[in-house]
Amino acid sequence: MAGSTFGTIFRITTWGESHGAALGVVIDGCPAGLPLCEEDIQKYLDRRKPGASSIATPRKEDDKVEILSGVFEGKTTGTPISLMVRNTSQNSGDYSEIASYYRPGHADYTYDQKYGFRDYRGGGRSSGRETLGRVAAGAVACKILEQMGITVCAYTKTIGAIQADMKHFDRDAILQTPTAMPDRKADDDAISYLEGAKKQSNSVGGCMECIIEGVPSGVGDPVFEKLDANLAKAIMSIGAVKAVEIGDGYKVSFRFGTDNNDCFQMENGKVVKTTNHAGGILGGISDGSPIVIRAHVKPTPSIYTTQQTVNKSGENININIKGRHDPVIIPRAVVVMECMAALTILDAMLVNMSAKLEHVVDFYKK
Amino acid sequence: MAGSTFGTIFRITTWGESHGAALGVVIDGCPAGLPLCEEDIQKYLDRRKPGASSIATPRKEDDKVEILSGVFEGKTTGTPISLMVRNTSQNSGDYSEIASYYRPGHADYTYDQKYGFRDYRGGGRSSGRETLGRVAAGAVACKILEQMGITVCAYTKTIGAIQADMKHFDRDAILQTPTAMPDRKADDDAISYLEGAKKQSNSVGGCMECIIEGVPSGVGDPVFEKLDANLAKAIMSIGAVKAVEIGDGYKVSFRFGTDNNDCFQMENGKVVKTTNHAGGILGGISDGSPIVIRAHVKPTPSIYTTQQTVNKSGENININIKGRHDPVIIPRAVVVMECMAALTILDAMLVNMSAKLEHVVDFYKK
Amino acid sequence: MAGSTFGTIFRITTWGESHGAALGVVIDGCPAGLPLCEEDIQKYLDRRKPGASSIATPRKEDDKVEILSGVFEGKTTGTPISLMVRNTSQNSGDYSEIASYYRPGHADYTYDQKYGFRDYRGGGRSSGRETLGRVAAGAVACKILEQMGITVCAYTKTIGAIQADMKHFDRDAILQTPTAMPDRKADDDAISYLEGAKKQSNSVGGCMECIIEGVPSGVGDPVFEKLDANLAKAIMSIGAVKAVEIGDGYKVSFRFGTDNNDCFQMENGKVVKTTNHAGGILGGISDGSPIVIRAHVKPTPSIYTTQQTVNKSGENININIKGRHDPVIIPRAVVVMECMAALTILDAMLVNMSAKLEHVVDFYKK
Amino acid sequence: MAGSTFGTIFRITTWGESHGAALGVVIDGCPAGLPLCEEDIQKYLDRRKPGASSIATPRKEDDKVEILSGVFEGKTTGTPISLMVRNTSQNSGDYSEIASYYRPGHADYTYDQKYGFRDYRGGGRSSGRETLGRVAAGAVACKILEQMGITVCAYTKTIGAIQADMKHFDRDAILQTPTAMPDRKADDDAISYLEGAKKQSNSVGGCMECIIEGVPSGVGDPVFEKLDANLAKAIMSIGAVKAVEIGDGYKVSFRFGTDNNDCFQMENGKVVKTTNHAGGILGGISDGSPIVIRAHVKPTPSIYTTQQTVNKSGENININIKGRHDPVIIPRAVVVMECMAALTILDAMLVNMSAKLEHVVDFYKK
Repeated sequence: MAGSTFGTIFRITTWGESHGAALGVVIDGCPAGLPLCEEDIQKYLDRRKPGASSIATPRKEDDKVEILSGVFEGKTTGTPISLMVRNTSQNSGDYSEIASYYRPGHADYTYDQKYGFRDYRGGGRSSGRETLGRVAAGAVACKILEQMGITVCAYTKTIGAIQADMKHFDRDAILQTPTAMPDRKADDDAISYLEGAKKQSNSVGGCMECIIEGVPSGVGDPVFEKLDANLAKAIMSIGAVKAVEIGDGYKVSFRFGTDNNDCFQMENGKVVKTTNHAGGILGGISDGSPIVIRAHVKPTPSIYTTQQTVNKSGENININIKGRHDPVIIPRAVVVMECMAALTILDAMLVNMSAKLEHVVDFYKK
Repeated sequence: MAGSTFGTIFRITTWGESHGAALGVVIDGCPAGLPLCEEDIQKYLDRRKPGASSIATPRKEDDKVEILSGVFEGKTTGTPISLMVRNTSQNSGDYSEIASYYRPGHADYTYDQKYGFRDYRGGGRSSGRETLGRVAAGAVACKILEQMGITVCAYTKTIGAIQADMKHFDRDAILQTPTAMPDRKADDDAISYLEGAKKQSNSVGGCMECIIEGVPSGVGDPVFEKLDANLAKAIMSIGAVKAVEIGDGYKVSFRFGTDNNDCFQMENGKVVKTTNHAGGILGGISDGSPIVIRAHVKPTPSIYTTQQTVNKSGENININIKGRHDPVIIPRAVVVMECMAALTILDAMLVNMSAKLEHVVDFYKK
Repeated sequence: MAGSTFGTIFRITTWGESHGAALGVVIDGCPAGLPLCEEDIQKYLDRRKPGASSIATPRKEDDKVEILSGVFEGKTTGTPISLMVRNTSQNSGDYSEIASYYRPGHADYTYDQKYGFRDYRGGGRSSGRETLGRVAAGAVACKILEQMGITVCAYTKTIGAIQADMKHFDRDAILQTPTAMPDRKADDDAISYLEGAKKQSNSVGGCMECIIEGVPSGVGDPVFEKLDANLAKAIMSIGAVKAVEIGDGYKVSFRFGTDNNDCFQMENGKVVKTTNHAGGILGGISDGSPIVIRAHVKPTPSIYTTQQTVNKSGENININIKGRHDPVIIPRAVVVMECMAALTILDAMLVNMSAKLEHVVDFYKK
Repeated sequence: MAGSTFGTIFRITTWGESHGAALGVVIDGCPAGLPLCEEDIQKYLDRRKPGASSIATPRKEDDKVEILSGVFEGKTTGTPISLMVRNTSQNSGDYSEIASYYRPGHADYTYDQKYGFRDYRGGGRSSGRETLGRVAAGAVACKILEQMGITVCAYTKTIGAIQADMKHFDRDAILQTPTAMPDRKADDDAISYLEGAKKQSNSVGGCMECIIEGVPSGVGDPVFEKLDANLAKAIMSIGAVKAVEIGDGYKVSFRFGTDNNDCFQMENGKVVKTTNHAGGILGGISDGSPIVIRAHVKPTPSIYTTQQTVNKSGENININIKGRHDPVIIPRAVVVMECMAALTILDAMLVNMSAKLEHVVDFYKK
């Protein structure tokens, strides 16, 4: 079915394969009047570009975005914004061998089972390049959120055994370090760690975190459209993510209630929470505190050690994967997490505008 | 917005407040021809009923379900199935005090912020009683899945520090122990642990796990409608869940690729995986292995120790919550997890029927 | 699939069969704070009640509505509003015969083809009683629209050869005449006309019109969610409607452009149209003029003359339909049209609140 | 909101403005395995191309389609199919004047009211060029329907006072005549009629009809997703359509039941209807007879006579529209109707596959 659409009011539809002609996204429901140019989007796309460091794949992907519709005289018109990136450096020859077998940890087998065959070049639609459309759309969502004083900030928290120290939180480091860690010391350690794994033809997992600040209280909907439920879906839909946490996450299962409840108190005439174990969401609705999400990402499945698998003729075989692959997914996934969080929050905010009848009546009295 | 609807083809809409006249669910899109009677649903509802043991709230909830539509001569007709449970034992007086303040860890504050006011009786729509509609609908989904040889089984894995030992897995124990643990020894230990917490007027968190066996490979959709993404949403939408894991979950972030990839091999002419770190899903699509999900649940926020909060006049106050509350949410949430998983899997399977053109053409040639 | 849900933000799900236990509707996404009681809904339901005159079926349907959720202390809470009407006067014995054959002009055959069998009692889900849920939900939509100065008014325009004269438009007559015509003279003529048809064991078609006044300009969305497209769907979904017109409708196909364009001019500092051939919608978006829709309704298919059909054994047979049937559908369908129009307009207005970025930013700055 | 998406399983999202960089469509949910090349789509796009005759706008639009994704080795893969047409011959200068005023019969005023401003070049998103995406997607839907023996055929029935004579029905003429009439004599007459209108700087309306043959019985859903309701929405969403009829359409309102009911009878062991007043749909579900729809289309609003309107400064002015405009919309809209009908039918058929439980169980037993 139609699995490539996300959102209710601010709705995006992504398309494109790793080695097809192009990839892109259509954003429908973007409010009219947002100043938007290609550079606004390009700077987000550049953050997921490979080739920047020794720990990333040496593949070169130019990823120049083109705005094809929905912007007139520099502003969004309210009609669909179509964004496209042409594939340029794809070398389909690298992948011809994998047509015949199923790579462990990849979606080769499941796509074949579902559709009967697959575009095997570089993973096709199941490639990490699929996230390009998410990031292009997320850049637009982030720009809108900024206008409301909302910031979305994701970063690498751990790579394998190496953890960023939040006491040394350095926001600039996120965009400057190869690991996207907010801690330059941990970045150094993580790079050594990754070099070690690379030498053993291995790959490494990690954890990324996203903090959303400035969301007013009252956003999100009861029951199935809870803000945390939609964030969980958004983040779990990123390839290789295997766990999603909100606030204190899995630690709550070991807690007592007295340690986990966040107390309310008045502060400068405003209701605030004295702690934020809940991660900014109560009953699925934002409470005004920072929203905190974490995602655990599996090691890159493309590894250079020999692996056992089966081929399409139903024979057990041993394979050695070739090509150019990141030893760790996280540093390039951080901007994808940021974008998916932004898309979810923005959509929930637009949907929320009709929650109170008095607001609806006021709106139309204007 | 309309947050109480879940699913695309098999679509449910729940309604009802803790202390309103009734709660219920409308199931639209249920295939025609399923034998269905009230007893099929009642046995699932009974699993979430309180009052069964010392560790559950002594509130008595009868929760007798009535089928109001969609079943004729004992079979589903394909039209909406309306299921209703009348509220009978609700004592609204217990809750009158909480109208004036915001309980820590509850949705009182966020509902007020969103809607301007709230039905404060027992949490209203944010009460755990909201899950009644989910369970009634899930019972129908489970019955359909059974006809296809699919079993969905959830249980309590940990309560606070006490963990069920999977080596002693005893399926019958899940329905028979007060904790819904599949290990009678752990159940005993957990009950002692909970008694200790109760004595300190405290509550406890825990972890529940769900295994879905028999789902054929090929179910789930790429990108945003990945099977794991929809499961994450479904499970995170259950009140008090703060983390969701698929397969090995958060542990993957500490792993090397060689330890995390599942190898394929032929077994009796079938493709199987030699391990199941992935939890039965690759690229968002089922791979034929058991699907494994875990959810981490916070301690019951209603605790009997004094807590600090604010009232609606904006004053800092201390409160002592009264009423009858479970010291741990998990044992009654297990059936909710089972039902949400079943609803997600079934819907994905119905949606999947048109994935291959040859199946579509065959279907209409009949 | 799930065919019983309508709307994006203000979303309704109806359920129930003609001769089941009850019928009802769940409204999800109703803004919080609307004063609402059962009487608000009952007065709309009473307009579709049969038994009021010689031209309507003598079946007695009490149709007492019960609000089961979503209203607290007399106001909507923002959570699902569940409305139910118990079936009381249904006499299933009347319909036992029709179980074995397909009534011409009814959905007996198509339901059997789709689902394999059907609830044959009184048409089951395909009965006109299905509209009860639409009317109950529409009553709530109308009450909200009223608060914004919007009125929705439907009436019978023609019954067979008899046409209401708009020059004698009498709004009170709509609720007072058996035909729901806004012209008492035409009502008299139509009743004679219907008596004639009844004597010949025949039934009659007709046309109904709906005028929506007060909708501000700018409501509706481009391309597929045009306001007229959604109105067409809403009205065509009412059983027995075979044509829908907007504004001058089918007459435009005989027109020249000079006669069909509506000119704009300034009037008291406002942009107005000098004519309203377009029926209040341009490019799918409201233009501030009254919105005008018409629906053409087929004659009641249940007629008392002998008809040819086939039975479930595949034999050609002649049948004589029994039971109590309206000789014309229109007078009771008028309130259904009014309600479907109201639901469509309200939903479009709620969706429209995020069209301009400046409104979104303003909203969240408050 | 997101108004540019249509369909549930076979879901399309169109984008693009008349004078932007490009227009296109993303098709998500297309079953895998359909042979598809650009020529399959191009031949449909060519049918809506202008410039072919004296009665069409002399604008030249090349409209070469490019498949950007979703097709691998000549077959659809089940993932999104992105189709794009670059704008090449657009002359934005022609439209600079209309930026300052509201053209009668166009969406200039309503877009400004909704969004605060508009892309005024050639109507932007409200231009007839928007249908390009619909036709590209519809070509794919038609190709799938063909594989199931279903044909969709639309044609011009009337242009102003000139009506095609169905007794002379000539299917080839539809693609060969400038008017898309299935009657060469009527085509000649219509051309003369149009020449007359052009001489008077006027435009003309008309009626188009679409016949869908081969749809099996049982397709479509009860209540709101009735097949006729969705067809009405699909067709009314085409710009300039002001009325939609199913089967005998508006004529039913003058009918008696005895003349309108279609009798069933057995024919070669199959249930058939002896007449088809219903137009192939009963209770919203296909009955196996041809599905018949008609649409009434208003005269082209861009006419060369002087018209009164207002400008953005709020002044009454007289205008003379320039540019190149069709004197009648219908001949180029016929293929759009065909495509919207195909999209609606195909989607309903895919959704319908899970109507019966036994089909679902059979499907997954394979």
